[in-house]
Amino acid sequence: MTLLEALGTPSDIAADVGEILIAADRRGIASHGTARLPNYVALVEARVMEPTARPAIERERPALARFDAHNGWGHHASRVAIDWAIDRAGSTGTAFAVVRNSNHYGIAGWYALRAADAGLIGLSFTNSSPLVAPTRALRPLIGTNPIAMAAPAGRFGAFCLDMATSTIPRGRIEVAARRGESLPVGWAIGPDGAPATTPKAALAGALLPLGGLEQTAGYKGYGLALGVDILSGVLAGATFGPNIIGLFSTEAPSDLGQAFCVIDPAAIDEPGAFERRLEAYLEQLVAAETVPDAPGRVLIPGEPEAEAERRADERGIAIDDRHYTSLVDLAERFGVSFPEVTSPG
Amino acid sequence: MTLLEALGTPSDIAADVGEILIAADRRGIASHGTARLPNYVALVEARVMEPTARPAIERERPALARFDAHNGWGHHASRVAIDWAIDRAGSTGTAFAVVRNSNHYGIAGWYALRAADAGLIGLSFTNSSPLVAPTRALRPLIGTNPIAMAAPAGRFGAFCLDMATSTIPRGRIEVAARRGESLPVGWAIGPDGAPATTPKAALAGALLPLGGLEQTAGYKGYGLALGVDILSGVLAGATFGPNIIGLFSTEAPSDLGQAFCVIDPAAIDEPGAFERRLEAYLEQLVAAETVPDAPGRVLIPGEPEAEAERRADERGIAIDDRHYTSLVDLAERFGVSFPEVTSPG
Repeated sequence: MTLLEALGTPSDIAADVGEILIAADRRGIASHGTARLPNYVALVEARVMEPTARPAIERERPALARFDAHNGWGHHASRVAIDWAIDRAGSTGTAFAVVRNSNHYGIAGWYALRAADAGLIGLSFTNSSPLVAPTRALRPLIGTNPIAMAAPAGRFGAFCLDMATSTIPRGRIEVAARRGESLPVGWAIGPDGAPATTPKAALAGALLPLGGLEQTAGYKGYGLALGVDILSGVLAGATFGPNIIGLFSTEAPSDLGQAFCVIDPAAIDEPGAFERRLEAYLEQLVAAETVPDAPGRVLIPGEPEAEAERRADERGIAIDDRHYTSLVDLAERFGVSFPEVTSPG
Repeated sequence: MTLLEALGTPSDIAADVGEILIAADRRGIASHGTARLPNYVALVEARVMEPTARPAIERERPALARFDAHNGWGHHASRVAIDWAIDRAGSTGTAFAVVRNSNHYGIAGWYALRAADAGLIGLSFTNSSPLVAPTRALRPLIGTNPIAMAAPAGRFGAFCLDMATSTIPRGRIEVAARRGESLPVGWAIGPDGAPATTPKAALAGALLPLGGLEQTAGYKGYGLALGVDILSGVLAGATFGPNIIGLFSTEAPSDLGQAFCVIDPAAIDEPGAFERRLEAYLEQLVAAETVPDAPGRVLIPGEPEAEAERRADERGIAIDDRHYTSLVDLAERFGVSFPEVTSPG
């Protein structure tokens, strides 16, 4: 009996959710993994998320479908949707799926990688809590709406871009607050609309879109965030932009939207040809001469996460004390067993 | 007889090219419009571009096709490809088309807007001359590879994001050079790899991807530029990244790749419902409270260009002296008539 099942989640759905949460931990993105379990528990206990719900296709064409997640686990509904798109792309060449009435789906990259693991190009998008101020706006009105894209890449495993469309995530400001750091211009604005130089001002204000201020093309990051919301929230018929309540708000269902696109390179090419070309491209990039103060060679999007995954598979997943305590507390409360833990050193 | 026809371009292809070049001028993006005609003429005269070539489908599935542009006009091949995707999306719901052996296609947004004008969501991508240094790299290895996305938006006409994935285009550095301006950190690096503070250093160095330096998440812009190249150059089987010779190099064909995606919202929704939701979203954004020093209200991506288009349609297209002289020279050389010109004031 797992914690997710103790919450009422059917075992097949729990398996999806567990796999995707642990994938975040393995890839070093703790903010999107099992550290969020207390939040999910709170959503279920407040009856604003329905752990037994199963997604259903509402409307479909050969290469486009809209799913209703029925306010269930976002991870499961999204896994079903990307699998639909992977299946359809096998015959149509390309497919696109959107999900409404959904919840937080964890790391955007997991779904894109699922397509890459099948030899396909995958894209994954979701809208999210309004934390970002559009260029010129004083208040946060739009989410950090991520863009993920993955493709098979030979000896590199996969190209996997998985990025929020804000300059940095809100969690990075919280880290700066704990460390007593000041902030570079371009990360956030304060409640007065001026660039935030302290974490306190930033946390009371809004994140800036990728690019930062208008002078450094922050309107592009704003445009990307809005584009993601159009493909996920608006197209799916979910809530969008400033109308989204916090993802982990226990006031009401969050009604997020997700979108997935899959393209089959082999449908228009010799088998393996796309992957060989991509590998050759990445070889050129990693061999490039670097700037004098570079901390290492040019990286491929997804490399740091793949490296974290290898380390975790060898040595286990490292989690901090607070995260550990929260999981032990949940395990005790729900009377479920907790995985074996080893302390470093 | 138009200039394009004098170059050997069949009249139907010339009509496409002319429309798309003039669309750039009307939308205030002079760098991608008729100001480029001397460059195109040079390509044709050097026999590295074939003005008579017609694109052909090489391989296709119901929702995915690869076109060979046969080294003809990029504008025409791309218009044919987006029209294929628009047509297919009408039955499949979504369609994706790529083009190889292509040339510069002008403004990315034109193709996305063609889908929006048909009530659909359109996306448009191309790879381009390597002018951008990936994060940590010393030299330019990757293009300013644009992302364009458009969707019908009620009283707003269309949402139309059309952005290079570099912080700014190279042309903006040239403007700064003429004005004697210094550059903000995040636009470019010099030949030594340090942030360029003068246009001279930037022009000898490389543009930075959207986000600027690593500290301000420039690796996201680099990831986007690479993602665009994967969807256009690598997927289409065109040249990619550092291997692309300049778009307007007369040494050899440039063999660019383009990609287009079309999604039909009405295939999974009531007619008009998507557009009404998007309009309601944009209403919220333009009504938002602004930062104290904002030069105006929050803008919708594509608004400045749509406003330029309205002005041009009322008062004609304003071009600078150098642009005017270059067109008169071409008209005289090829013995074609030049449109009526009025001087302001």
